[in-house]
Amino acid sequence: MRNLTLLTDLYELTMMQGYFKTVNNRTVIFDAFHRNNPCGGGYAIACGLDQVIDYINNLHFTDDDIAYLSSLNLFDNDFLDYLKNFHFTGDIYAIPEGTLIFPREPIVKVIAPIIEAQLVETAILNIINHQSLIATKAARVCYAAKGDGIMEFGLRRAQGPDAGIYGARAAVIAGCVGTSNVLTGQMFDVPVKGTHAHSWIMSFPDEYTAFKTYADLYPNACILLVDTYDTLRSGVPNAIRVFKEMREAGIELKGYGIRLDSGDLAYFSKKARKMLDDAGFEDAIISASSDLDEYLIDSLKTQGAAITSWGVGTNLITAKDNPAFGGVYKLAAVMGDDGKFIPKIKLSENSEKITNPGNKTVYRVYDTDGMLKADLIALTDETYDENEPLLLFDPIETWKKTLLQPGEYTLREIIVPVFKNGECVYTTPPVMDIQKYCKHELATLWDESKRLINPQEVHVDLSKKLYDCKQELLNTYSTPHIH
Amino acid sequence: MRNLTLLTDLYELTMMQGYFKTVNNRTVIFDAFHRNNPCGGGYAIACGLDQVIDYINNLHFTDDDIAYLSSLNLFDNDFLDYLKNFHFTGDIYAIPEGTLIFPREPIVKVIAPIIEAQLVETAILNIINHQSLIATKAARVCYAAKGDGIMEFGLRRAQGPDAGIYGARAAVIAGCVGTSNVLTGQMFDVPVKGTHAHSWIMSFPDEYTAFKTYADLYPNACILLVDTYDTLRSGVPNAIRVFKEMREAGIELKGYGIRLDSGDLAYFSKKARKMLDDAGFEDAIISASSDLDEYLIDSLKTQGAAITSWGVGTNLITAKDNPAFGGVYKLAAVMGDDGKFIPKIKLSENSEKITNPGNKTVYRVYDTDGMLKADLIALTDETYDENEPLLLFDPIETWKKTLLQPGEYTLREIIVPVFKNGECVYTTPPVMDIQKYCKHELATLWDESKRLINPQEVHVDLSKKLYDCKQELLNTYSTPHIH
Repeated sequence: MRNLTLLTDLYELTMMQGYFKTVNNRTVIFDAFHRNNPCGGGYAIACGLDQVIDYINNLHFTDDDIAYLSSLNLFDNDFLDYLKNFHFTGDIYAIPEGTLIFPREPIVKVIAPIIEAQLVETAILNIINHQSLIATKAARVCYAAKGDGIMEFGLRRAQGPDAGIYGARAAVIAGCVGTSNVLTGQMFDVPVKGTHAHSWIMSFPDEYTAFKTYADLYPNACILLVDTYDTLRSGVPNAIRVFKEMREAGIELKGYGIRLDSGDLAYFSKKARKMLDDAGFEDAIISASSDLDEYLIDSLKTQGAAITSWGVGTNLITAKDNPAFGGVYKLAAVMGDDGKFIPKIKLSENSEKITNPGNKTVYRVYDTDGMLKADLIALTDETYDENEPLLLFDPIETWKKTLLQPGEYTLREIIVPVFKNGECVYTTPPVMDIQKYCKHELATLWDESKRLINPQEVHVDLSKKLYDCKQELLNTYSTPHIH
Repeated sequence: MRNLTLLTDLYELTMMQGYFKTVNNRTVIFDAFHRNNPCGGGYAIACGLDQVIDYINNLHFTDDDIAYLSSLNLFDNDFLDYLKNFHFTGDIYAIPEGTLIFPREPIVKVIAPIIEAQLVETAILNIINHQSLIATKAARVCYAAKGDGIMEFGLRRAQGPDAGIYGARAAVIAGCVGTSNVLTGQMFDVPVKGTHAHSWIMSFPDEYTAFKTYADLYPNACILLVDTYDTLRSGVPNAIRVFKEMREAGIELKGYGIRLDSGDLAYFSKKARKMLDDAGFEDAIISASSDLDEYLIDSLKTQGAAITSWGVGTNLITAKDNPAFGGVYKLAAVMGDDGKFIPKIKLSENSEKITNPGNKTVYRVYDTDGMLKADLIALTDETYDENEPLLLFDPIETWKKTLLQPGEYTLREIIVPVFKNGECVYTTPPVMDIQKYCKHELATLWDESKRLINPQEVHVDLSKKLYDCKQELLNTYSTPHIH
């Protein structure tokens, strides 16, 4: 396991020394949350917790790390000595991977002495921001494909090895049927797929020989790339010739077909479909790649393109139209001398950027059909009972209220314990199980909130107690200059 | 060193088995190159070669790797046995890191048996695409700052750990004065910087106490974050109070100042400058962060913002407006039975996507002032002599010609050997030396080609011999359907 302890911003370490030196090492609560769903969408998918767990479990400063920090001439020996025995002793709560998440919900909540909680900020954000971004993008792409299989194959355009490895993991969690990335396949036991590239075709004297050779080698996974020279005049006819020869040789044709990788995919796919059908290959798959994303797939579907399998690279693995998730990590409470948490708030001229104070959890509210009705951010010391009426109100436009009667709703707390006193108490399910769970999660969301453009916003309400706490703090801080 | 051997697309492995089984393992030449400069710019910066070298040096299939591949039921034992002893035996040539590059120039050229050259495609592209992208973006941001220092601090928004680690490396190579990323600092001996976050301020009873405590701890690097509560009414006055107390205590104030992280940076910086100056702190630094990129920095400069130090996060580390470099890896030649390379070409309906065939190198042509005049892609068996006239012509609009007389130009071959027969023959300079080299590289480029929007294109010409070779192949392949 890689030691990522120094994968942090220098200021975390200078602040740590500050907390250490001033004995201001109170237990605090930090929340990691996002403020906007990527790509203008109606939801996001939590992802990356498994790697956060690895990171926390492996958190320690090696002798080399200490020597390096010492060389910076910023840190005193007493602090460096403290780091030698550093490990995480706090609690972490999180929303499990594959879960739908909405803005301002704590995806990860860290309760720990501030010196520890501060260190882990950067890596937690790095990991959660990346994987939640790619999972969300992948869910959008899969949604556009309306049940067709989406293959992730963006490794070569990913932003470095980890972006490829963990991006592919996130893509599979959110619904991709597989990835081209062999290392991801090995690490997470997810399906890997792929056939051949243009270079295969070009390394043979002609396209037919290349196809024929490939078909002999892989008769059970024979998807031929038909656009190296001329898709409709050379590629598809040569593919049909090879399929015919396979049929004549008595080979059972299954999982076979063609891949289009350039040109007008609507036109080429319809023409190719007709050519394949006319030759008696009605079950030949037509797959496509070539700068695809959710918008292009949606458009091709609308145009009646005869494509049922999609390979998506660059635009998915980089979330090209929105390549940062924007998750932040904000102080929500500081423990007072009496052992009780004092809620804290971060102000901003932009009221959307004002944080929610206190020790919080999130309830998901479902209607009687099991569809997601709203989310409710509450304080952990509140209790909810499905046998009582539930009042929901909008935290900005507070006059917008809904009263749910018993029987009209169910509640699910979506935050779970992950670390207790520095010990991991959570086991990440296998990736393919998370994929199944995520599929179920997405099924609880109305299409109106899943559509690609201008989706219906899911309500994320605050409990009355949390709302009042926030208002009180806002009033206290409204004259900050007199402090 | 991490074993990234399986960091490849599955199809590379299925093709490898195909080459292995059909004894079609000829020596070939592949070129990695890009087709468009990122962000609509006039240039790109080559970066990532050092990690490509590590990857190639460490290329081997472990027993676990073999067992995993075997479990896929795609590969036969004879091929898996071959992989057990696999290592790279070929040659690699590349354009060194920090060098200006332009579309269609081979950044990396691999000459190896196709079974080896095919495997390394994905990882080489992944690494070079990522780092060249971030280096290019960083060069643009530094250009906009007109000599002010740019700090990279995007780790928390980078697409995974590697994107943060190697993105910061690329950013420093292209001119950033430092990074917040401690691990990058440790791995590559580059400056790390940073002070404190809003959480530092919020963990104290009030802003003044937080500032004062920080100043006591770090009197030599006292940059105070002033926007937690109210920048002009609370943050700047409290910072001035602390600076005054430091002055009164006889502390020499150096490298001190404030950081703005929200609000209208032009307005706040001018107001803060006046407040600091009026209090006698004319040398206090005003640094700024908050969703900056090259366009915003350029605009703030134009508006006369009183900022001289910039922290750039998300937009740089993800190259947000253009998060993929788009480099490709294309077959350029296959060795014939006579031991000579047969040039290969990849056709496309888009003539910009047609590849350049053959075994190529790149010459940079300078004028007598040492400024970059044009690049010339030539075949390696051509020789050039600065004592002879040099004819340059545009490969698309061939009537556009320039004849340079001896004394009017100098030539520099920018591709260097990196591996010979599988042995590394190149030593990567320290990152800060590459930064110096890159600065010199950028100084050879006219401002007209460096400007952010609508830059003058640098001419990349083909030698007459390469041009003729390409035309001949195009004519051969113009009737591909009869093959």
